[in-house]
Amino acid sequence: MLKRYLPILTWLPHYTRRLAGADLLAGVIVSIMVIPQSLAYALLAGLPAVVGLYASILPLLAYTLLGTSRTLAVGPVAIIALMTGAALSGVATPGTPEYLQAALVLSLLSGLMLTAMGLLRLGFFANFLSHPVIAGFLSASAVLIAASQAAHLLGIEASGFTALALVASLAGELGQTHGPTLLMGLGCLAFLVGIRQFGKRAFMAMGLPAGFAALLTRTGPVIAVIVTTLLSWQLELAERGVAVIGAVPGGLPPLTLPPLEVPLWQRLLVPALLISVVGFVESISMAQMLAAKRRERISPNQELVGLGGANVAAAFTGGMPVTGGLSRTVINFESGARTPMAGLFAALGIAAVTLALTPLLHHLPIATLAATITVSILTLVDIPLVRQTWRYSRSDFSAMAVTIALTLVEGVEAGIISGVALSIGLFLYRTSRPHSALVGRIEGTEHFRSVHRHQTETVSHLAMLRIDESLYFANARYLEDTLYALVASRPELDHVVLICSAVNLIDASALESLEAINARLQDSSVTLHLAEVKGPVMDRLKHSDFLDDLTGRVFLSTYAAWVELKRQSDEAR
Amino acid sequence: MLKRYLPILTWLPHYTRRLAGADLLAGVIVSIMVIPQSLAYALLAGLPAVVGLYASILPLLAYTLLGTSRTLAVGPVAIIALMTGAALSGVATPGTPEYLQAALVLSLLSGLMLTAMGLLRLGFFANFLSHPVIAGFLSASAVLIAASQAAHLLGIEASGFTALALVASLAGELGQTHGPTLLMGLGCLAFLVGIRQFGKRAFMAMGLPAGFAALLTRTGPVIAVIVTTLLSWQLELAERGVAVIGAVPGGLPPLTLPPLEVPLWQRLLVPALLISVVGFVESISMAQMLAAKRRERISPNQELVGLGGANVAAAFTGGMPVTGGLSRTVINFESGARTPMAGLFAALGIAAVTLALTPLLHHLPIATLAATITVSILTLVDIPLVRQTWRYSRSDFSAMAVTIALTLVEGVEAGIISGVALSIGLFLYRTSRPHSALVGRIEGTEHFRSVHRHQTETVSHLAMLRIDESLYFANARYLEDTLYALVASRPELDHVVLICSAVNLIDASALESLEAINARLQDSSVTLHLAEVKGPVMDRLKHSDFLDDLTGRVFLSTYAAWVELKRQSDEAR
Repeated sequence: MLKRYLPILTWLPHYTRRLAGADLLAGVIVSIMVIPQSLAYALLAGLPAVVGLYASILPLLAYTLLGTSRTLAVGPVAIIALMTGAALSGVATPGTPEYLQAALVLSLLSGLMLTAMGLLRLGFFANFLSHPVIAGFLSASAVLIAASQAAHLLGIEASGFTALALVASLAGELGQTHGPTLLMGLGCLAFLVGIRQFGKRAFMAMGLPAGFAALLTRTGPVIAVIVTTLLSWQLELAERGVAVIGAVPGGLPPLTLPPLEVPLWQRLLVPALLISVVGFVESISMAQMLAAKRRERISPNQELVGLGGANVAAAFTGGMPVTGGLSRTVINFESGARTPMAGLFAALGIAAVTLALTPLLHHLPIATLAATITVSILTLVDIPLVRQTWRYSRSDFSAMAVTIALTLVEGVEAGIISGVALSIGLFLYRTSRPHSALVGRIEGTEHFRSVHRHQTETVSHLAMLRIDESLYFANARYLEDTLYALVASRPELDHVVLICSAVNLIDASALESLEAINARLQDSSVTLHLAEVKGPVMDRLKHSDFLDDLTGRVFLSTYAAWVELKRQSDEAR
Repeated sequence: MLKRYLPILTWLPHYTRRLAGADLLAGVIVSIMVIPQSLAYALLAGLPAVVGLYASILPLLAYTLLGTSRTLAVGPVAIIALMTGAALSGVATPGTPEYLQAALVLSLLSGLMLTAMGLLRLGFFANFLSHPVIAGFLSASAVLIAASQAAHLLGIEASGFTALALVASLAGELGQTHGPTLLMGLGCLAFLVGIRQFGKRAFMAMGLPAGFAALLTRTGPVIAVIVTTLLSWQLELAERGVAVIGAVPGGLPPLTLPPLEVPLWQRLLVPALLISVVGFVESISMAQMLAAKRRERISPNQELVGLGGANVAAAFTGGMPVTGGLSRTVINFESGARTPMAGLFAALGIAAVTLALTPLLHHLPIATLAATITVSILTLVDIPLVRQTWRYSRSDFSAMAVTIALTLVEGVEAGIISGVALSIGLFLYRTSRPHSALVGRIEGTEHFRSVHRHQTETVSHLAMLRIDESLYFANARYLEDTLYALVASRPELDHVVLICSAVNLIDASALESLEAINARLQDSSVTLHLAEVKGPVMDRLKHSDFLDDLTGRVFLSTYAAWVELKRQSDEAR
C-alpha cells in the first residue's frame, strides 16, 4: 500500500553502488544541459529567468519520491511555459509581484488537481485529448512560441498570445531591428541547426561511439550559451544594446507561500486544469515510450501524483508549473539514468549552480536563449502528420485543423478546449449513425455477408441485419428508424434477426428502443429475433424484461437462426 | 424537392371527401378537448390564459403545411410551458408587457433553431438526450409542475421554478388556504381521477364500443370545465374569493413582432435551445410511435422544420413555444384523424372559440385548470422505470438520478444540461476502458473463447487478444497499457494477435497507438498480427502506412492465425 503511493520504496532498497554511479553521471550531465532551457522557458512565461532554475530543483526531488518512471526528468517545458504566460497575463502584468504570485497559485492549483486526479484514479481523463488534437495543439503552440522568440532574435519588443497579436506587434516594430542582436541570434541559430543536423555524423566520423556522439550533439545549447556569454562579456555587448539576462539573484530557492485569494484562484482554475492535462499527456506519453524500451512499467495514476507533487513543490519554492520535459528526459535517458535517483543528483547540480554560479549568467544574451527555444520548438511542427491525418480520416483532420486554427487565432485555451469538444462531438456523431448491413448466406457455407457486397442467398420473408456498433442512447433512435424503414419497405416480412456480434453494450436507451421495436414489429406481425449476443450483453439483458417480451428467439449463431427461420417459412407456405 | 420541404404536396393531391370527413370530425373533437389544457399551460408559463389559445391556431396551420406526421397535434404542452416560465422569469416579471414580448422572442428563437437544425439535417442532435435522462427530466418536471399547481388548488400564491423555492413558498402560505377553492379543486381532482380510472370500463359496460368509450373518457377535463364554470357563475364564486380566469379578450390572434433586442436574444439563446431539443424529442418519439402503428413513415429532419414553422408562427401571433403534445395528439389519433388536415380543422375550431366564446371562460375557476394539469402531468412520473433502470444499468441510473436531483434542486435547465453531460461522459468512460479477452482455442474446433471463462488450448509463445470495442482516442492509450502489461508479464511471447471482430472504427489516435505498439513490440522482439479486420476498417488502414510497417500479418480469421503461428512456433523449437 505504502509502496503504491511512494514508489521510491520499491527501488531504493535494491539500490546499488553501480546504479548510483550511472545515475550520478546522468544527473551531472542533465544539470548542465537543462540550465539554458530552464532559463529560457521562464522568460517565455514572462517570469524572471531564475524562476526556471528554482522550478528545476525541489520539483525534481518530489518526483524522485513519488514518480514511477525511471527516467522522466521534470522541469519547465516550452508548451507549459507558453500556457502559463497566457494564463498569467490574463490576471496580472509581467514584471509585477502579482505576476510572480499568480505563477505560484497556478503551480499549486495544477499540483493539487494532478494529485487529486491521481488519487481518484482519473488518469483516463487525459485520454480525451486525441492524438490529432494534441499534435495540432503542439504544432500551433510551437508556431506561437517561435513567433514570440522572433522578437528576441530581432532585438525588438513583441507581446501577445495569439498569432494575430504577435504578428501585428512584430510588424510594427520591425524597423527597430537591432543589428548586433540579430547577428548574434542568427549565428546561434545556424550553429544549433548545424550541430543538430550534422553533429552526430561528424562526431561518429571522429571515431566516437554512437551514443556518446548523440549526447555530444545535445551539448549545442550549452556551447552556444558559454560562447555567447563570453563574447557578450568581452565585447560589452550589453552596452551596445544587446539584451542580456542581467543580475540573477544567487542562493537557494526561496520559501514561498501562494496567496490565498479566492477570486485569483477562481480565474486560474480553468487554465490550471488545461495545463495539468496537457502537461500530463506530454509527460505520460514520453514516460510510457521510454519504459516500453526497457520493458519497464509505469502507473499512469501514480504518475499524476508524482507530477502533482512536483508542482506543489514548485509552488512553495518560487517556481512555475512543471511537467516531464521531452528534451531533458531524453538527455537523462541517453546519459544512462537508471532510477529516479538521477533526478535527485540533477537537482543537487542545479542547486549548486543556482547557489554559486548565477553571476556568470549576467552577460548571457537573451537572443541565445531565443535561438535555443526556436530550434527545439520547431521540431514539434509536424506537417507530414497533418497530411497523413488528412489522408487517413477527414473527421480526425477536422478536429486537428480546428485546434490549430483556434490556437493560433484565439490562443492556447480556446484551441485545446474546442479541439477536445469537437473530437468528442465527432466521435459521438459517428457512433450515432452506426453502420449496419443486411446479410445473406454465402451459398453452401455457414458464412453470412452483406447482400450488397456479395452474391448471397436470401429469403423474402426473413431479413437479417448485422449491427456494427454498440447500441446506446445516441444511436438507439437511428436503429428504430432503420428497422421501421426496413419493415415499411418489405411488406412480406415475417422475421427480422438482429445480428449482434459487434454489439459490446446495450444501454438503457437502446434497450427501450429494442422493446419499442419488438412491440411495433409485433403490431405489424413481424417477429424479432437476436443472434450472436455476447456474454456480458446477454447477462445485462437478463436483468430486464426484454427477453420475456421478445416475440422471437435468441440464436447462438446467425446460421442457427437461418436454418430455423427458413424451415418455418418453408413450412408456412 | 419541393415535396420534401412541403410535405402537404404529397398528400393533398390525393385528398378525398372520405378523408375530409374523418379529419373534420377529429378536428372538431380536438378543438373542444384541447381548450382547457391550452389555457392551463399558458397560465403555467406565467402568461395570460388566452396566449394558450393563440398558440393553438396558426402554429397548427404551419405544421399542417410543413409536418410529416399524419396525426401529430401541436400546441402548448406542460413541460415546454414549465421551461418557458423558468426561462422568462429570468428576464422579465410575469404580468408585464416585457414578459409577453420575451415569450415571443423565445418562440421565434426556438422556431429558427428548429428550422435550421432541420435544414442542416441535425436531427441526430436530439439523440444525445438519452432515455433515462429524458425520463428523469420528465418525472422531475412533473413533480415541479404538480407542486406549482398545488398552490392553485389550495387557493394560495406560490412561485419558483425549483422544488425548494416552491415548497418554501407553499409552506409559508399554507395557513391562507382558501376553503371553497380547495373544495372545488379536490372535487375536480376526484372526478378526473375517477373518470380516468373507471370511465372506459363504465362506458363499455353501458354497451359503447371501446374506441368511443376511450374518447368519452377523455372528455373529463371538458366536463369539469363546463360544470365548474357554470357553478362558479351561478354561485358567484369569484366574489367569494375563488380565483377565476376573468376577462379574456375576444377576437382573432393579434399580429405580433418579437422585439429585436440583442441582449434579450442572447439571454434566451440557451433556454431556446433546450426548449427546442426537449420539445423535439417529446414530439418525435410520439410521432414515430403513432406512425409505426399505421406503418407510415415520418422524416425527423422535416419534423424539425414543421415544429420550427409552428414556433415561428406562434412568435408572430401572440403565442408561446409549442411542440407536438402527447394528450392532444392521442385525442387526434383516437378521433380518427387521417391527415394533417385535421390540424387545420382544429385550428379553425379553436379560432372560432377565440373569436366568439371567450366571454364564457370568464367564470372558469383556475383550480379546475390546476386539477386537469395535475392529473395529466402525474402520469409522467415513472417510478417503475427508475427501478428498472437501477436494475439494468448503474451508469444509466446515475445519469437519471443526477437529472432528477438537479432538475428539482437547481431547475429545469441545470437538470437537463447536467444529465446530458453526465450521460455522454459515462458513455465515453465506458468505451475508454474497453473489454478485451485473451482467447484460446476450444479444442478440436475452429472456435476461440476467453481463456478465463472456458477450457481452452493455448500456446505459450502466442497471445490472442480479442478487443470488444471500437478503437478511438479515448481508449487508444488503454490498449497500449493492456498490451505492454501483457508483454511485460510474459517474457516468452513471440507473437501477439489482435482479434478485431468487434472493432468498427480505428481513428487516427488509435492508429498511432497501434503504430507505437507495433514498434515497441518489435523492440521486444514480439511480432504483432491482426485478425478478422472488418472491410471498412481495412479500407481505412490501407490509406495509412501501418500495414507496411506491421511486423506480422493480417489474418482473415482467428483460426488461420492460430494454425500459422502455432506451426511457426513449433518449427522454431
